[in-house]
Amino acid sequence: MKPCEEEEDEGGAAGGGDPWKECVEVAVQLALRAGQIIRKALKEEKQVSTKTSAADLVTETDHFVENLIISVLKEKFPSHRFIAEESTAAGSKCVLTDSPTWIIDPVDGTCNFVHRFPTVAVSIGFAVNKELEFGVIYHCTEERLYTGRRGQGAFCNDKRLHVSKETDISKALILTEIGPKRDPATLKLFLGNIERLLMAQAHGVRVIGSSTLALCHLASGAADAYYQFGLHCWDLAAATVIIREAGGTVIDTSGGPLDLMSCRVVAAGTREMAMFIAQEIQTIHYRRDDEN
Amino acid sequence: MKPCEEEEDEGGAAGGGDPWKECVEVAVQLALRAGQIIRKALKEEKQVSTKTSAADLVTETDHFVENLIISVLKEKFPSHRFIAEESTAAGSKCVLTDSPTWIIDPVDGTCNFVHRFPTVAVSIGFAVNKELEFGVIYHCTEERLYTGRRGQGAFCNDKRLHVSKETDISKALILTEIGPKRDPATLKLFLGNIERLLMAQAHGVRVIGSSTLALCHLASGAADAYYQFGLHCWDLAAATVIIREAGGTVIDTSGGPLDLMSCRVVAAGTREMAMFIAQEIQTIHYRRDDEN
Repeated sequence: MKPCEEEEDEGGAAGGGDPWKECVEVAVQLALRAGQIIRKALKEEKQVSTKTSAADLVTETDHFVENLIISVLKEKFPSHRFIAEESTAAGSKCVLTDSPTWIIDPVDGTCNFVHRFPTVAVSIGFAVNKELEFGVIYHCTEERLYTGRRGQGAFCNDKRLHVSKETDISKALILTEIGPKRDPATLKLFLGNIERLLMAQAHGVRVIGSSTLALCHLASGAADAYYQFGLHCWDLAAATVIIREAGGTVIDTSGGPLDLMSCRVVAAGTREMAMFIAQEIQTIHYRRDDEN
Repeated sequence: MKPCEEEEDEGGAAGGGDPWKECVEVAVQLALRAGQIIRKALKEEKQVSTKTSAADLVTETDHFVENLIISVLKEKFPSHRFIAEESTAAGSKCVLTDSPTWIIDPVDGTCNFVHRFPTVAVSIGFAVNKELEFGVIYHCTEERLYTGRRGQGAFCNDKRLHVSKETDISKALILTEIGPKRDPATLKLFLGNIERLLMAQAHGVRVIGSSTLALCHLASGAADAYYQFGLHCWDLAAATVIIREAGGTVIDTSGGPLDLMSCRVVAAGTREMAMFIAQEIQTIHYRRDDEN
């Protein structure tokens, strides 16, 4: 077992170099291991529960994978902090401090997972001094590993990622997700936003059921923009590093800087496209992740 | 070169047995070959043109793959007839007779293809006496081959497919596609239909940009229903056999029998689910495929 070290050394090469190299390596290994568990679980019957709404699902696998990831990380990096989807649902505080913090979604696309719809990911982000340092996302069924490290680029299975350079909405493919709230007023706003973008002659809008993987498509240049209300910091943290390192823009839906806890985002290959989407869409109000 | 045979023998084992065995084998080989071409083309720059609307796209690859498939089939089966997406766009009649007829979509998900969004398929269906005999669909980037042969089951890479047995909309994952018409009235109906299903508490609605692959997800049991207005017989032909052979239901949006030329469909794992969707959704009018 690794001895307990001083906080600033944990996960780092002693004395300079890349201070978070070991953390990245552990995150990759954990994402691959989690992906293996999820692939196996996709073949089995599931016990499904609901959280904030009838469409906000959770399974034993979400809990199992989250516990596994956190227990390994806690042993390796005992002073680090954790923000994770199911721990938060169970009452843990969701506050980002200056401490090294892991931000984890054990199964992104739980509704897809429940239906065996093969678009499911593990997402592991890492922040220090409230700045996102790296992100690791693993597409479990297609076995695609996305990684991004601040200042060092973004990759999918070791192939460098580059966002689309499109600035014209009439040539754009846009991604979004429905979000957990399903009351009539929220649905009107959600559908109204799609209508606005299609009326602006976007080529198309896609809804694939995994925010994280949609954001990876954006990082790969396979779509031109993504926006959502009602996603969480664990959906965004890892993907934000990957998109920025692929050359993209990740901002708040107001057009201002991203607030990881605000449960809303616009991401795009270009700043022009992100600003266009931010101006076009209507706000859907969700409670912040760090509100109790 | 294969000599010209009498019509009833073409593609068939002489004297009984499976009369369309050779046709299925040729379809599989062509789908794989087309998939290889599409995978290569996904990496290259594309010349894009539009057809019925700014969102109805076509590329050189659509034409190239369609010409390749039809030229090989014409040589092997000279008396067979063809209905194919780009030939129809170029003015060929789209009429289903009693003759053996190949119904082909060379690149389903052309908008995805243009954006390198990795959800693109080749679809080859085959009908005799207006009855669908077999379907072959190839997911080009994930290299999944879906096949269905009337009376002989449906498979994905040789694994038998079974649809979902869900009858309850509040536990259902639904798939749909936007369709080519983008006028305000059509968009209102399209979005209104999603609203109705989400208000009926469906778990979610997905829009992946390929009717054919959405229908394959349904055949795999990864979703519970699919509906669309504005798809074509070449989007539906192969998938219909695959879904039916996986135990599913494919009907008209009126709740009556499927009309392959009507440009509308509801498909589901169960008849109850299909009828629920058919009753819930509002009709969007598209011209029939066999209207001039």
